[in-house]
Amino acid sequence: MFKADIITLFPDLFPGPLGASIIGRAAENDLWSLNATQLRDFATDKHKKVDDTPAGGGPGLVLKPDILAKAIDHISPEDDPRPRILMSPRGKPFDQQMARDWANGPGVVIVCGRFEGVDQRVIDKRNLTEISIGDFVLCGGEVAAMTMLEATVRLLPGVMGSAESEADESFENGLLEYPQYTRPAEFEGGPIPEVVTSGDHKKVNQWRQEQSEQLTKQNRPDLWEKYQKNK
Amino acid sequence: MFKADIITLFPDLFPGPLGASIIGRAAENDLWSLNATQLRDFATDKHKKVDDTPAGGGPGLVLKPDILAKAIDHISPEDDPRPRILMSPRGKPFDQQMARDWANGPGVVIVCGRFEGVDQRVIDKRNLTEISIGDFVLCGGEVAAMTMLEATVRLLPGVMGSAESEADESFENGLLEYPQYTRPAEFEGGPIPEVVTSGDHKKVNQWRQEQSEQLTKQNRPDLWEKYQKNK
Repeated sequence: MFKADIITLFPDLFPGPLGASIIGRAAENDLWSLNATQLRDFATDKHKKVDDTPAGGGPGLVLKPDILAKAIDHISPEDDPRPRILMSPRGKPFDQQMARDWANGPGVVIVCGRFEGVDQRVIDKRNLTEISIGDFVLCGGEVAAMTMLEATVRLLPGVMGSAESEADESFENGLLEYPQYTRPAEFEGGPIPEVVTSGDHKKVNQWRQEQSEQLTKQNRPDLWEKYQKNK
Repeated sequence: MFKADIITLFPDLFPGPLGASIIGRAAENDLWSLNATQLRDFATDKHKKVDDTPAGGGPGLVLKPDILAKAIDHISPEDDPRPRILMSPRGKPFDQQMARDWANGPGVVIVCGRFEGVDQRVIDKRNLTEISIGDFVLCGGEVAAMTMLEATVRLLPGVMGSAESEADESFENGLLEYPQYTRPAEFEGGPIPEVVTSGDHKKVNQWRQEQSEQLTKQNRPDLWEKYQKNK
């Protein structure tokens, strides 16, 4: 079973959205499990302090290496085969390939900071891999962790129905999706393009391919370049 | 006040993580408001159907344009100045500049699909801007919407304290953050680098700048290229 552990100052946020829909049902069916651990429980002083001012000065606070190391060792002993992830704007951007790799493994341990930086020594000594969810700043890693887990868990065997899996495959051809239409045939004076309802499957597929290519070229030149290379 | 509206099949997921920490407090202090609307309430048949099979065939389902249009018109009349966003893997990637732009505006309306595509005609006729949270596939747009709102709301005036704002500015120089350290002075035999604790601010700043540049070059050549151009 895929086992996800979160180390956070806000364990009550979990499972949150991960308790809903097919992701929540998958947990009920023991296809994966989620455990959120309160970092503050590993603090040793009476104020339960987990962070301190940055050495060398500067704004903000830094998570103390000793406290975080204790939490990690409790959750993920040295021989734990799961990747240990630190949510960080400095990290490698999360993408579908990473979701696939994680889904093929035993699970994941995710450390969520909150406002603070993390002492570099615990990143190095506990072998934390820094991962970013995108080029924007959040208050903490919690929502980013949920996003990554949703993308990963849906790929676990048995989580998606066949209809969803098929739709997925069509996404993964490296192009953006073509325009979709459904009933009613006319909406506010706008019909569905004739070719789509022609019943000529070859023509429909050709039109969709052209639309996908055009949209990708226009919206995501970076993906288009990759697509051209891989063709 | 910044007004966020979500159109979703899972309104109960909100506010969820957006109810916590400074983002939740900001809502309590009327710095922003969040309203989640059940799309299914706008269905007209007795099965409360909101989607139908794709015209022209193919896997998955497509959100019906008439039902979604009714929900949008209810939440966001024609003269609503807020941007209307559709979460979509096809869209422009969300980034910090977008968060800033939204934070400077009156709010945002976010439509979350779930598995399905959305009929192209309602995208066009209701002027929906497609935005993507990253190059990965989710079950629905809800967690992505939370992520974007967290990034946006924290930028609203009065939401962050001064310490957090300062830390923010240092992030926004276009480089990744330098390594951080805090007490204890020695952790598992590892000291804090001497220069950081030297007390020589000029040297500390120079070291941090070098580290930032090196990390950016190594982890994010795309950002490094941009940084070089803007220098």
